[in-house]
Amino acid sequence: MLTISEYQEQFLIYLKSQNIDKEPKNLYQPIDYILQLGGKRLRPVLTLMTADIFDIDYKLALPAAMAVEVFHNFSLVHDDIMDDAPLRRGNETVHEKWNINTGILSGDAMLILAYKYFENYQPETFRKLAKLFSKTALEVCEGQQYDVDFETRNDVTIPEYLKMIEYKTAVLVAAAMKMGAIVARSSKENRSLIYDFGLNLGLAFQLQDDYLDAFGNPETFGKQVGGDIIENKKTYLYLKALEFAKPTEKEQLLHLFSTKLDDNSDKIAAVKEIFNTTGASKATQKTIEEYTLKAFETLEQIKISEDKKAILKAFGENLMSRNT
Amino acid sequence: MLTISEYQEQFLIYLKSQNIDKEPKNLYQPIDYILQLGGKRLRPVLTLMTADIFDIDYKLALPAAMAVEVFHNFSLVHDDIMDDAPLRRGNETVHEKWNINTGILSGDAMLILAYKYFENYQPETFRKLAKLFSKTALEVCEGQQYDVDFETRNDVTIPEYLKMIEYKTAVLVAAAMKMGAIVARSSKENRSLIYDFGLNLGLAFQLQDDYLDAFGNPETFGKQVGGDIIENKKTYLYLKALEFAKPTEKEQLLHLFSTKLDDNSDKIAAVKEIFNTTGASKATQKTIEEYTLKAFETLEQIKISEDKKAILKAFGENLMSRNT
Repeated sequence: MLTISEYQEQFLIYLKSQNIDKEPKNLYQPIDYILQLGGKRLRPVLTLMTADIFDIDYKLALPAAMAVEVFHNFSLVHDDIMDDAPLRRGNETVHEKWNINTGILSGDAMLILAYKYFENYQPETFRKLAKLFSKTALEVCEGQQYDVDFETRNDVTIPEYLKMIEYKTAVLVAAAMKMGAIVARSSKENRSLIYDFGLNLGLAFQLQDDYLDAFGNPETFGKQVGGDIIENKKTYLYLKALEFAKPTEKEQLLHLFSTKLDDNSDKIAAVKEIFNTTGASKATQKTIEEYTLKAFETLEQIKISEDKKAILKAFGENLMSRNT
Repeated sequence: MLTISEYQEQFLIYLKSQNIDKEPKNLYQPIDYILQLGGKRLRPVLTLMTADIFDIDYKLALPAAMAVEVFHNFSLVHDDIMDDAPLRRGNETVHEKWNINTGILSGDAMLILAYKYFENYQPETFRKLAKLFSKTALEVCEGQQYDVDFETRNDVTIPEYLKMIEYKTAVLVAAAMKMGAIVARSSKENRSLIYDFGLNLGLAFQLQDDYLDAFGNPETFGKQVGGDIIENKKTYLYLKALEFAKPTEKEQLLHLFSTKLDDNSDKIAAVKEIFNTTGASKATQKTIEEYTLKAFETLEQIKISEDKKAILKAFGENLMSRNT
């Protein structure tokens, strides 16, 4: 087994060896641009790691890891258009650097390119990978649609929110790991367990993201702290606060979330205060812990050596103690 | 073998039996809408017909035919956004009826749905179909990009134009037929020949489209006659006219294509006059005939019975004598 940063490095070597910048330039340059823009490469690293965990050379999982990363970046390109986002990883988004039409068409090509990476595998493996990929990709679209729908709804429930982040984020983490297990031809039971491990870890990861967006350390957190509050995003923290709030707090929170201001520092401070006094912060931390523990319980059932379990557990703990 | 309209009918029965309108509604309703909007269903009919030609029940090719039709409609949804088109088949386009974000996301889901239809086939067939599909879909994206690039270029050559329409239109016609042959497990040689037949027929079809756009009978032509001229589209007719034009005609044509007018009837008449006097109209008709003949020559080499060849030939002749 390699370390996380070694897997990242090996993935980047593979990524850079791909000859993506072909003709027509206006189609492929944006693809090359977004793929080279960086990011934690969390998903492809999980694919490679899982292949190793299930006793196959991680190098054999590089094309599957690449498919996952290309798909993830496809979803970023199209989501950024829909959110009208100017920046991604501190750089211009594709539709900002080129234009919306380029963002649409290059994104489409990326979705197809992702499938093409499975052509590196034999028919049985190819079919398993592509089938899991299609199911996952469709769920990601559904999650994105729910996220859009929630913007204009005032009756979003906690189970609905959890389903949305499961589809929008967690299923791809789960599928990334399962693909490593498919390439390694591990048993059906193990494939299913590693998927559940990834799913719960992915849910914990996204809830952690929600939490850090409000309570992260501005010194170390990559994004603007309070971004979700500024955007009036109905996160887990917000929904829990509404659930727990006394009538006056509820009224205050609803009022704060009905405004868009130029200077947001007072708003952010007031909302965070409500998140704390209602107990929403604590409840969110508790839920993150529950999903993490659920992931670790699943891990126990997987038929792999104890030292391999320890590696996955350390990875999960590392992910949960992150502050970026 | 069935007749064309019987294949259409069978395809529509299958299409309507698909339960597409699921949750979230805002994602799936637009997909259902565009798929039900009609159209000639040319591509899926070709898939079904080819399966029969290669001696397998066309019903087995229904999922592959559906994949082709879903992909074709995906490309229409995204192209209509890029072209800012308000109407499609006489009805509102998806982004017009809903919004651009819905058009992007529902389109993405359609591309994934298309792949999912291949899951009806066993691994070997699945891989062959998906591989051909990915190659084709990527070429369609490349064709669309070339089409966009050509809008702002004044040095487009005839070979470049032919490559653009090959990618944007002909490869999908070719792939639709080859998919029928793949489902029928026909020989590699026959698969390759039927692809070439479809490719040449597709090229003839698109050039015929260019021709009818200018010279079609307004009584029977479905779209506005002269639409390409109004939009200053660099079609085969236009490029041939520039090639053959005397200096004064060339100057006149370039001038006409540098304007956008409110009343276009004079412009259309003047451009058509140049298309005729330069010999561009005749040259276009000649090229259409050449591609059709090339398709028929390829047909001769396919190892199928003479009556089946006659059916494909009649289909091709029918397509070329159309006026809509």
